Amino acid sequence: MQLGLSFSDSDVSSFTPLVVLELADDTKAEAITWLLNRIRDKQQNGGAELLVNQLLFPAQDDQKSNPNVFVVGSTLQRLLNGAEDVGLFKEFQDGTMRGFTYANRESFKDFNGDGEGFLSDAECQYIIKHGLDTLRAKNEQHVPGYPKLKLYPGKSVVRRLQSKGVLIQYFPLHNKEDLKRLSFSWYKKFKLSFQPLDDIRHYFGEGLALYFGFLEYFTFALVPMALIGIPYYLFDWEDYDKYVLFAVFNLVWSTVFLEVWKRCSATLAYGWGTLSRKKAFEEPRAGFHGALGFNPVTGREEPVYPSSKRQLRIYLVSVPFVLLCLYLSFYVMMVYFDMEFWAINTYHENPNIATSILLFVPSIIYAVVIEIMNLLYRCAAEFLTDWENHRLESSFQNHLVLKVLVFNFVNCFASLFYIAFVMQNMVLLRQSLATLLITSQILNQVMEAFLPYWLQRRRNKKVHKRMRRLMGDKELPLLGQVQLETEMNTYLGTFDDYLEQFLLFGYVSLFSCVYPLAAVLVVLNNITEVYSDAFKMCHVFKRPFSEPAANIGVWQLAFETMSIIAVVTNCALIGLSPQVKAYFPESDTQLILIVVAIEHVLLAFKFILAFVIPDVPKHIQVKLAKLDFDSLEALKKRVSRCLSPRMRRKK
Amino acid sequence: MQLGLSFSDSDVSSFTPLVVLELADDTKAEAITWLLNRIRDKQQNGGAELLVNQLLFPAQDDQKSNPNVFVVGSTLQRLLNGAEDVGLFKEFQDGTMRGFTYANRESFKDFNGDGEGFLSDAECQYIIKHGLDTLRAKNEQHVPGYPKLKLYPGKSVVRRLQSKGVLIQYFPLHNKEDLKRLSFSWYKKFKLSFQPLDDIRHYFGEGLALYFGFLEYFTFALVPMALIGIPYYLFDWEDYDKYVLFAVFNLVWSTVFLEVWKRCSATLAYGWGTLSRKKAFEEPRAGFHGALGFNPVTGREEPVYPSSKRQLRIYLVSVPFVLLCLYLSFYVMMVYFDMEFWAINTYHENPNIATSILLFVPSIIYAVVIEIMNLLYRCAAEFLTDWENHRLESSFQNHLVLKVLVFNFVNCFASLFYIAFVMQNMVLLRQSLATLLITSQILNQVMEAFLPYWLQRRRNKKVHKRMRRLMGDKELPLLGQVQLETEMNTYLGTFDDYLEQFLLFGYVSLFSCVYPLAAVLVVLNNITEVYSDAFKMCHVFKRPFSEPAANIGVWQLAFETMSIIAVVTNCALIGLSPQVKAYFPESDTQLILIVVAIEHVLLAFKFILAFVIPDVPKHIQVKLAKLDFDSLEALKKRVSRCLSPRMRRKK
Repeated sequence: MQLGLSFSDSDVSSFTPLVVLELADDTKAEAITWLLNRIRDKQQNGGAELLVNQLLFPAQDDQKSNPNVFVVGSTLQRLLNGAEDVGLFKEFQDGTMRGFTYANRESFKDFNGDGEGFLSDAECQYIIKHGLDTLRAKNEQHVPGYPKLKLYPGKSVVRRLQSKGVLIQYFPLHNKEDLKRLSFSWYKKFKLSFQPLDDIRHYFGEGLALYFGFLEYFTFALVPMALIGIPYYLFDWEDYDKYVLFAVFNLVWSTVFLEVWKRCSATLAYGWGTLSRKKAFEEPRAGFHGALGFNPVTGREEPVYPSSKRQLRIYLVSVPFVLLCLYLSFYVMMVYFDMEFWAINTYHENPNIATSILLFVPSIIYAVVIEIMNLLYRCAAEFLTDWENHRLESSFQNHLVLKVLVFNFVNCFASLFYIAFVMQNMVLLRQSLATLLITSQILNQVMEAFLPYWLQRRRNKKVHKRMRRLMGDKELPLLGQVQLETEMNTYLGTFDDYLEQFLLFGYVSLFSCVYPLAAVLVVLNNITEVYSDAFKMCHVFKRPFSEPAANIGVWQLAFETMSIIAVVTNCALIGLSPQVKAYFPESDTQLILIVVAIEHVLLAFKFILAFVIPDVPKHIQVKLAKLDFDSLEALKKRVSRCLSPRMRRKK
Repeated sequence: MQLGLSFSDSDVSSFTPLVVLELADDTKAEAITWLLNRIRDKQQNGGAELLVNQLLFPAQDDQKSNPNVFVVGSTLQRLLNGAEDVGLFKEFQDGTMRGFTYANRESFKDFNGDGEGFLSDAECQYIIKHGLDTLRAKNEQHVPGYPKLKLYPGKSVVRRLQSKGVLIQYFPLHNKEDLKRLSFSWYKKFKLSFQPLDDIRHYFGEGLALYFGFLEYFTFALVPMALIGIPYYLFDWEDYDKYVLFAVFNLVWSTVFLEVWKRCSATLAYGWGTLSRKKAFEEPRAGFHGALGFNPVTGREEPVYPSSKRQLRIYLVSVPFVLLCLYLSFYVMMVYFDMEFWAINTYHENPNIATSILLFVPSIIYAVVIEIMNLLYRCAAEFLTDWENHRLESSFQNHLVLKVLVFNFVNCFASLFYIAFVMQNMVLLRQSLATLLITSQILNQVMEAFLPYWLQRRRNKKVHKRMRRLMGDKELPLLGQVQLETEMNTYLGTFDDYLEQFLLFGYVSLFSCVYPLAAVLVVLNNITEVYSDAFKMCHVFKRPFSEPAANIGVWQLAFETMSIIAVVTNCALIGLSPQVKAYFPESDTQLILIVVAIEHVLLAFKFILAFVIPDVPKHIQVKLAKLDFDSLEALKKRVSRCLSPRMRRKK
C-alpha cells in the first residue's frame, strides 16, 4: 500500500516535513485514502490544502514498524495565509505588534522577498495543526470503511478520529540544527545570564517560554529572600523567635512579587504578539461524548451532554472522592505524628548517633509517602475529570487544576499547619519543613529528569542499533528521526512544572520565616530545575506543539491565593512568636486583637495594591491603544470609501 | 440676524426638533454661520449632516432672551446611518440582540417600512449628540471671529467651544406626549407593581434605567430583612443581645444580594443591547487643558498634560486635603460625643420630658452637620478633581468617586464604629443609628425633591406669565417649551442617587443587627425615593442625554467593598454580644480566636461564591456565544468569497 511519494525510496523531499501523523497500523486503506485526500484538497473545497506523504520503511524490517506514518508539510503561500487565519501577531514596521494579514505582508518588519523565514518553525507547525484540527466533515455520513464512526457536518475530523483511536497521534518534528543552537545558548554553556526566552519561544512557542520566564523570574525574586535568609540561618539558628522581621519581609515580598510578574508577563506576551490576540472559538475536546442533539450556539447537530448530569457526577462522586482523599491524607498525617513521637521518645530514652538519625526518618518517610499520594491522586483526578465529561478543554483543565491543587495543598502543608498552630512547636516545624522540602526536591529531580533521561537513552540506543541494522550505510536521517521521535514520551504540558513551583512557593511564603534557608534551597533547586527542564524539553520528550499564551492563566490565581494565605499564616506566626508575646505580658486578648487588626490592614492593603498597580505597563497600554485607534480609523476610512465612491474618484 | 428658517414666524416645523443648542448671546455672527454650516455639511465633507434652525423670539420681548438658541434635528436616513455609527444593538428577527447595520435593516424585528419609529427619541437624541460631539476641526486654524480660540485638526469642535464658554449648553428636548404616558405608568397611578423599566430606558436611556432598576431591586431585596426586623423590634426591643441570628442573616444576605444583582443587571443590559456593545474611543473631557504636544496614541497634535504633574497635584494637594477633611470629620465627631455626654448627664441629673428630648438633640445636630459637611466636601472634591486636570472623563469620575466615597464613609459611619467597638455601648449605638438614619433621610428627601420642585414651580409660573404676555393668544408651544427647559436645572447624573443608596446600604448591612428597624426605614425611604426621583426626572430637571451603560460601573465595586466590611463588622458585633460571650465564660482569647476564624471562613466563602456564580446568566451567555459564532462564520464566508470569486459564480 503506497499513497503518493514516499521518502524512503526517493530520498528527495519535495517539501520540508514539519508534522508527523501516525494512524493505527490496522487502519483501512479507504479511510487513509479519504483522509489524505481531504488533507490535500483545496481550502475552497473544505480541505486543509497541506502537503502529506507516507513514510515507507525498508521492506526488510523484521520488527513491527507501523506502516501508517505520514509527514505533513505546507507551501509557503499556504502558511502565510494560515498565519492570517490563526490570527498571528507580528512586528510591524513602526515597532508595534499587529495582526498579520497577507495583503499587508510587505509592511511587516522581517518580511523579505517571498516571506521565507518570516514564520518560525513553531509557528508553521501551529498553523499546520490548526489546519488539521479545523478539517471539518462535509457531507460524509461516516469515515469510509468505518460505518460506525459517524461524522457530523462541520465538526473536526481529526478530533473524531483521535477520540476513536484511528489517529494515534500527531506531533511536530524537531529541527536538529535549531535545537543544537538553542540548547547551546540555553544550558550547554555554563554562565550566569538570563535564559534565551525569545529563542525558546521561537522554538517551543509562547506557553512554554512563559513557563521558563516565570521560573527565571521566580528564582531571581527569591534571591533577596535567600540573601537575607543566610545570615539569619547562620547567626540566629537557635533564636527561632527572632523571625518577626523576616515574616514582615515575607509578606511584602509575596505581594509585590506577583504584581510585578503580571507586568513582566504582559510585556513578554506583547513582544510575542499574544497579548491582544483573540481567543479562537473553542471546539469540544477529543474525549467528549454524548447523545446526539443540537448545539444551542451553532445550531448544528452534534453530541451533547446535559449539564445537570455532569453536575451530579461532580457533586455526588468527585466531591466525595476528593473529601475521602483529604481524610486519608489527614489519617496519614496522624500516623506520621505517631511515628515522630515514637522517634523522639526513643531518642530521649537513649540519645546516640543512631537515634539522632532516627529523628529524621519519620519526616523522610512522610515526604516520600506524600509524593506517592500526590502521584496516585493525580491519576485518579485525571480519570475522574475525564469521566465528568467536560465539553471544552478549558473547563476540563480548570476542574483538574482545582482538584489537584486542593489535594496537593492539604497533603503537603497540613502537617506543617498542624505543627505550627495546634502543637505550636517551632523546633519541630523547622525540622519538618526542612525534611519535606529537601526530600521532595530530590524526588522531583529524579522523577522529572533523570529517570526519563535514562529511559530515553536506552530507547535511543535501541532505535539507533535497529536503524543501522536495517539500512546499513544508507543515510536516511528523516526516517531515523521520525522513528525515534515517534517513540519518545509526550510532554504533557506545563501543569506539573507549575504545580511544583506552586508548592515551592508555598514552602517559602508560608513558613520560611521559621526556616530562612527554605528560600536558599528553592533557589538552588530552581537553578538545577532550569537545566534539567531545558534538557528534558530538548532531548527527552517529543517536541510539543506551540501554544499561544498571553499569561500563565489559572496559575496566577493559584499563586495569588497562596500569597493571601501567606499573609494570614505569617501574621499568626508573628502573633505566636515569644518576641511579640513579650510586649503583652499580661493579656493575650490584646495581642490577638492587634495581630488580627494588622492582618486585616495588610489584606486590605494587598487588595488595594493589586487594584492600583496596572496589570499592563504604561508604554504597552499606549501601544495597544494606538492599535485600537488605528483599526478604528481604518474601518472609518473603509466605510466612508464604500459610502462615497465619488471621493475615491477625486483622488 | 436670522440664519435659515425659524419657527416663530413660520410655525411650521420642517423637522422634529430633538436637541437644543444654546450659544453665548454675544457670540460673533461669523462663528455662528461657520458652526451651523459645519453642522449642516455632508458627512463626506466632515460635517455632521444634521438639520439646525435658529429659534427666534418675538421682537417685543423686553426681557433679555438669549437670541442664540438653536434646535437640531435630523433626517430619518441620517439617524439610521448614525445608529450604525454609534454601534446600537437592536433585537434581530431571531430574538438575539445584534449590532444594527443599515444594510441589514430589514432583518431587525421592529423595522417596518422606512424605519419610522424604529429608533426611540432617546436614541435619536443620542445619535445627534454623537454627531455633534464628533464634529471635528478640519483645516481651520481657529474659530472664525475668535483668533485666540485655536482648533486642532481632528479634535471635537463642540467640546472646544464648550470648554471656552462659547457654547453654553446643548440638551435634548422633552417629548410631552411620551412624558405624559411614562409618568402615568411610572408614578401617577398608585400601585404595587414594578417600575416600567423598559419605558424608562426608552425615554431616558440605559444609564438611568439601570439606576431605577437597581433602586427597585435593592428595595425588594430589603423586604425580607425588614420583615424579619419588625418582630425583632417588637418583641426584643430591650434584648439587644439577641442579634446574633440577625447578624448571620445580614452576612448571607449582603453577599447574595450583590451577586444576584450582577446577573439581573446583565439580563437587563442584554435586553437593552448595551451588554456586548463596545466602548467608543474616548475623547478628552471638555475641561482638559495643557501645552501643545503630540498624542502618543493618535500621533496628532493636541494639548497634553504630563502625568507626573498630575501625580504631584494628587499626592501633594488632594491627598493631604482629603486627610485634613477626615481629621476635621473626626474632630466634629469628638465634639458630638462631648455634647452627647453632656446631654446624658443633664438627663440623669434631672430626668423629665424636656431632658429626655434633649437626649436626641446632639444626634440630630450631628446628622445635620454631617449632611452639610458632605455637601461642602462634595464641592471641594469636584473642584480639586477638576484641578487635577484628568484627560478622560472616566478617569475624572473615578478620582471623584474615590474621594467622595472615602470621606462620606468616614463621615457617616466613624461615630457608629467608635460607639460600637471603642465604647461598646449598644444602647447608644442603636439610638445614634436611628437618629442618623432618620434625619439624613428627611434631609435628603427635602434637598433632592421638594426644594427643586418648589423652585421649578416658581420658575415655571414666571415663564408662563412672560410667554402669555409676549404672544397673547398665539400658540407657540415649541418656543415656550424651549424657553422653559433652557432654564431648568441640569440633572448631574446618577452620582448622588447612587451615593445615597450606598450610604443606606451601609447603615443596613453594617449595623442593622442592633437596630433591626433600619431595613424597614430604608424600605420606606426607597419607596418614596422612587416616586420623588421619578417626579424630579420628569418635571424638575432638563431631560438628560441617554447614556448607554452595561452595568452600574464603579458602584458595583463600592457596594461589594461595603459588603466585605459588613462581614468584618457583623462578626465583631457577634463576638461582642453577651449572648455569645456567655458560651466562653472563662476565656476571652478563645472567643476572639473562634470569631476571627469564622470571619476568615466567611470572607473566603464570599470570594469563592463571587468566583463561582457566573456574572452573566447561562441563557445570555449562550446568546452572546451565538453572536460571536455567527459573526465569525460571516467573516469566514466573506473571506472565502473574496478569495474565490469562482465559488460565488457557482451559486
